Amino acid sequence: MRDVAIIGCGMTKFGRREEDLLELLMEASLAAMKDAGLDHRSVDAVYVANMGAGILNYQTGVASALVDRLNLLPAPADTVENGPASGASAIKNAFLAIASGLYDSVLVVGGEKMRAVTGWEATDFVASMTHRQGEYIYGVTLPSLAGMFARLHMAKYGVKQEHLAMVAVKNHENGAKNPYAHIQQAVTMEGILLRPEAVVNNPPIAEPLRMYDCCPVSDGAAAVVLCAAEKAKDAPHPAVHIAGFGQATDIHAVYQRDDPLDLKAVRGAAKAAFEMARLCPQDIQVAELHDAFTILEIVESEQAGFFPVGQGHRALEEGATRLDGKLPINPSGGLKARGHPVGATGVAQVTELVWQLRGQAGERQVSQAVNGFCCNFGGFGNNVLAFVLSRE
Amino acid sequence: MRDVAIIGCGMTKFGRREEDLLELLMEASLAAMKDAGLDHRSVDAVYVANMGAGILNYQTGVASALVDRLNLLPAPADTVENGPASGASAIKNAFLAIASGLYDSVLVVGGEKMRAVTGWEATDFVASMTHRQGEYIYGVTLPSLAGMFARLHMAKYGVKQEHLAMVAVKNHENGAKNPYAHIQQAVTMEGILLRPEAVVNNPPIAEPLRMYDCCPVSDGAAAVVLCAAEKAKDAPHPAVHIAGFGQATDIHAVYQRDDPLDLKAVRGAAKAAFEMARLCPQDIQVAELHDAFTILEIVESEQAGFFPVGQGHRALEEGATRLDGKLPINPSGGLKARGHPVGATGVAQVTELVWQLRGQAGERQVSQAVNGFCCNFGGFGNNVLAFVLSRE
Repeated sequence: MRDVAIIGCGMTKFGRREEDLLELLMEASLAAMKDAGLDHRSVDAVYVANMGAGILNYQTGVASALVDRLNLLPAPADTVENGPASGASAIKNAFLAIASGLYDSVLVVGGEKMRAVTGWEATDFVASMTHRQGEYIYGVTLPSLAGMFARLHMAKYGVKQEHLAMVAVKNHENGAKNPYAHIQQAVTMEGILLRPEAVVNNPPIAEPLRMYDCCPVSDGAAAVVLCAAEKAKDAPHPAVHIAGFGQATDIHAVYQRDDPLDLKAVRGAAKAAFEMARLCPQDIQVAELHDAFTILEIVESEQAGFFPVGQGHRALEEGATRLDGKLPINPSGGLKARGHPVGATGVAQVTELVWQLRGQAGERQVSQAVNGFCCNFGGFGNNVLAFVLSRE
Repeated sequence: MRDVAIIGCGMTKFGRREEDLLELLMEASLAAMKDAGLDHRSVDAVYVANMGAGILNYQTGVASALVDRLNLLPAPADTVENGPASGASAIKNAFLAIASGLYDSVLVVGGEKMRAVTGWEATDFVASMTHRQGEYIYGVTLPSLAGMFARLHMAKYGVKQEHLAMVAVKNHENGAKNPYAHIQQAVTMEGILLRPEAVVNNPPIAEPLRMYDCCPVSDGAAAVVLCAAEKAKDAPHPAVHIAGFGQATDIHAVYQRDDPLDLKAVRGAAKAAFEMARLCPQDIQVAELHDAFTILEIVESEQAGFFPVGQGHRALEEGATRLDGKLPINPSGGLKARGHPVGATGVAQVTELVWQLRGQAGERQVSQAVNGFCCNFGGFGNNVLAFVLSRE
């Protein structure tokens, strides 16, 4: 396998956007190509990550449309779908295509235009990834699964509502420093939990999860340019290497799992990524985790091996995961504040890590970051990918 | 790049099926795994090819659901979408993943459950791959594009309505010998064109194309197992090698192309596939072309290099593309008679070639086939893939 590096990245601001899906994908793609110092003659292939253009935008063949608009013809182009982990799956396939020796430089762009439909429709769309006969027809949604999951975890490990709110407060604080974030506004524990009016400002969605425990519904796109490491020397910025990658699947319907708290696919993907990178969780200085719901950041931080199982909330309350902590988690603001245009998220996580490893993250820069980790969580943990990135 | 072989294949009968999408994918997958002599412990990863589960079946994350149902956990699984060329794109990505060295054996399964909606809705769904602002909003559909394309080609090269009907007659004759075909019934030139009542039995769809010039709307799935060639020795059947592969994109909106008759992406994909295989069109003994409309078989047979441009219809009338001809095209019955469940088609083409190269094609067996070629046509030729397969 050839070594693969990331030589460019870019993204649109996440949030409510007027542009259509293709325009969002173009904006992020052009930013990443510019960042990589590539013109249209230098892109060998394109991968698009998208989950819902069919349902949300009544559009198929998005990759074919994009490669034309970007003036990259006749470059091969495919779309990869893996629910909310579509972004990481697209990067995986671009990575393998370069590793195989077929292509030297590949553009990967993930995006979603979710606000084309109402919030309820968006929630129902996301629920299209649940088990048809075992979950969807009974009205299960991702917030309801996450709510039940949170209850179980809280009961078993003594996690409190305050811990969930701590994730939100931390990630909103980080998001306020990220010009690409959907929500660039800090919130306080008092405002979202302690004051009497908090129950109005932060209403229950699927108890114990309240509104500030759930990511917003966002439009947006993010892009990276991958390149064979041996050809990455001339790029304007120092290359960031894909040191390790892992992917694992788990039982589709959550109720069928032996232990619903045991997110095996997170553990399996992280383990594989660390093994390929020949690194361990202690070698990581910055992580982007898939906090579609606040509880997930806590649990993923354990399953990825950063903290012992049942101790993630302790690390959180000690400030270990803050920007100035031992292991800053979601400096970007995470899905919670940066937003979660589903197809974009896995690419946006990698983009944030590249900026952090290059030292380009501005006010939210983590100090001394050499190795970064990200986890992109598909389904309710039924298809998870992890990457370990390293600067040279 | 490691050499990659196909060690197993299988498919469902195409047509109107009672089963849901996941059941169709399972049926084809299990058939391919059995054919390859693999049990669930021997599959390293899964790729699903599907174009429309979102729109047609309101379902996402199909690959995650499938890998669980097949008892292949925790194998990585992704879905690849490239319109009607989704099947070939999924095979491409599995091929590169094995070529890279990461996986040894990968299951690729393509499928579509199109009859979940009405015929009109299915046509509108397929039109979701056209250019949004330049084609779709003006009511362009794939049959209408193909009709206009046929008119132009007929005017330029002296192709007649009879030539289109000859493709249908040939492919229905082949399909009648294929137990997996949607339509297993021969038709005659008299019945679909010459007799007065033909205009009723075979009504115009988008002139000059009539009903028998268009593929049916089908449900179905097809699957192949790919394996690193060095590990294919123990498989029950002789390995068929992926000797060459090519993919190319073209201008998205047909009206913007300099010459709408010039299917550059077909030519580019075929050229790349032949170059990688170090073979030329004269080395091919059997081909599966993407005859979603009869005119496309004629034109692809020229653009792929089998006949000079403008001479494909001559070869057809001379019988060169019949089962007993010099270059049998679409022995399976093609999209015309086997059917076209869009996500399945590229995989079904490869499956037919494997059966032909192994000598397992029964009544429709081509004699002395050593090398096969297939062309999977996405959009209206905006994203095309080609494979050259060779038996050992």
